[in-house]
Amino acid sequence: MIDEDDLVRRIRAAVAGHGDGVVVGIGDDCAVLETTPGTRLLAKTDLLIEDVHFRRRYATPRDVGWKSLAVNVSDISAKGARSRWALVALACPAATSPQDIEDFYGGLLELARPYGISVVGGDTSSSPGAWFVNVMLLGEAAHPVLRSTARSGDVVAVTGTLGRSAAGLALLDAAQETSRVDAGIRAEMVEAHLRPRPRVAEGRWLGSANGVTAMMDISDGIGIDLPRLCAESGTGATVDVAAIPIAPGVRAVADAFGADALAWATGGGEDYELLVVCAADAFGAIARGLRASTGTDLTRIGTIEAEPGTRFVGVDGRAVSVRAGYQHFAARP
Amino acid sequence: MIDEDDLVRRIRAAVAGHGDGVVVGIGDDCAVLETTPGTRLLAKTDLLIEDVHFRRRYATPRDVGWKSLAVNVSDISAKGARSRWALVALACPAATSPQDIEDFYGGLLELARPYGISVVGGDTSSSPGAWFVNVMLLGEAAHPVLRSTARSGDVVAVTGTLGRSAAGLALLDAAQETSRVDAGIRAEMVEAHLRPRPRVAEGRWLGSANGVTAMMDISDGIGIDLPRLCAESGTGATVDVAAIPIAPGVRAVADAFGADALAWATGGGEDYELLVVCAADAFGAIARGLRASTGTDLTRIGTIEAEPGTRFVGVDGRAVSVRAGYQHFAARP
Repeated sequence: MIDEDDLVRRIRAAVAGHGDGVVVGIGDDCAVLETTPGTRLLAKTDLLIEDVHFRRRYATPRDVGWKSLAVNVSDISAKGARSRWALVALACPAATSPQDIEDFYGGLLELARPYGISVVGGDTSSSPGAWFVNVMLLGEAAHPVLRSTARSGDVVAVTGTLGRSAAGLALLDAAQETSRVDAGIRAEMVEAHLRPRPRVAEGRWLGSANGVTAMMDISDGIGIDLPRLCAESGTGATVDVAAIPIAPGVRAVADAFGADALAWATGGGEDYELLVVCAADAFGAIARGLRASTGTDLTRIGTIEAEPGTRFVGVDGRAVSVRAGYQHFAARP
Repeated sequence: MIDEDDLVRRIRAAVAGHGDGVVVGIGDDCAVLETTPGTRLLAKTDLLIEDVHFRRRYATPRDVGWKSLAVNVSDISAKGARSRWALVALACPAATSPQDIEDFYGGLLELARPYGISVVGGDTSSSPGAWFVNVMLLGEAAHPVLRSTARSGDVVAVTGTLGRSAAGLALLDAAQETSRVDAGIRAEMVEAHLRPRPRVAEGRWLGSANGVTAMMDISDGIGIDLPRLCAESGTGATVDVAAIPIAPGVRAVADAFGADALAWATGGGEDYELLVVCAADAFGAIARGLRASTGTDLTRIGTIEAEPGTRFVGVDGRAVSVRAGYQHFAARP
């Protein structure tokens, strides 16, 4: 049995010493925080639920802790903002070991510490069954980059490559070990799924780069996220599917499973790359600057159009149907 | 089946038009907010889980929506602060009707609107079983009142009365209708449990009153919350159990169930009254001022002591053992 006050003490001890802007952290009714004058406050919350977003069979409590913060950091980074303070709600069965709960926080702090993110509050509860995690993250930016400000004629681009998380999930979900996949590739894909690395440095750099007009993170797949950006901006887009950057390892795993690497890249979701919209004449300088500053590639995949709707076009110029991305209230594809 | 984008559209429509300080609400990666210069930011999160915190048998989606915000408003109010922005995470089974989800938001907004609280973000997901709700609330105060600043010799007081929520829960949990309890009393107790009214006006008034040294809300029962306040303040306390305000209806319900009204008042929890600590010579003026301003009584129940530990003392001056309050990882008392 877990003693609740003892649990709060353990959590408090684990998160101690990370107090930038924290007047009062865990221990009072609320966190009390000192915001930075001249900035806007950003707030984001994301759910991670056992057997919906992860399976305990392959995700350790450390993985779950890491990822539950990572997905929120990704959103704040996609606004060009700095992540600052997290509140962490965790419900797990009453029989959960204190070690598992500490490991959950350990994984979360492993990501938080290098970025100076403080855990300033939260809630713990028993759960009637599944693990249920909800992290709320606060960030700051002087001029956050929105998803509603894309303009017709702008370039659509993505950081890094897409599809690794879906490939990792396919490997984890496979009933048996797939010996047809190289161990190094397997490790990379599984890591991309379990421990996604939010584009923190890239988001900050792009957020203050000249010519970036809109940005969002790719959490559900560009097949669903790009139409969302376009809807908020009152625009449409055309995407050249051949230009979508897919890591060679993703193609190798897709081949081993007889799966479609493009479907993973457009609809698998959870890549947490950035979807970047910028002025067409600024794209070259932005891509060069981003690579020089962070080592990350920015790939042009399409164009924002005045006409509503997102069109994915093949090399022959014909429309291609792509997987629309993950919907939580739909059956798992 | 629920269409996720359609769900976001419905929620967005439902919460629209409540934009004080909201630069960007639901629809982007994050909410973007404008904080008030000269204030501290307060942040709080609370979980409400089906079959842990409520049962769907008696709590409607509207009740759950209301209460999930109310418990957070109570914490912000207990710091003398103004509640401003909420983020709402909801997971429920995929088969849940859209009407239930709209009703959940409806109940939440019923509480939010009169207080000018905006819902600025959130997350929805399917759940493998239970309803899981996590509300995160942001507030502001120039000088928040903490729980760590009580001083030896201060008066310990509570707003309103204690035990109504526990009495309501006993009535709801009873296998049959208890005809021994008056219908009016029953309605009052059940409402106190399902639709707690956070002490918003009282918190704001007390937060700026001269002589208030520490404050917290009573969510788990004074048997556990007062020791927490004392631990944070590095003090102890003595409580005169005969002085604890218990509504006559609570005694009537306790009699009908053969239960202990004092145990409900000290350990039942979920009353969301305020635990107020103030300078001894200021208590009279504070109690009169609070009653004049809000109509709510403030009752002196004890004294802060230098010696650690919280002692509950009966009319004969002997120590009384009281129920310690609700612990989530303990078996339900």
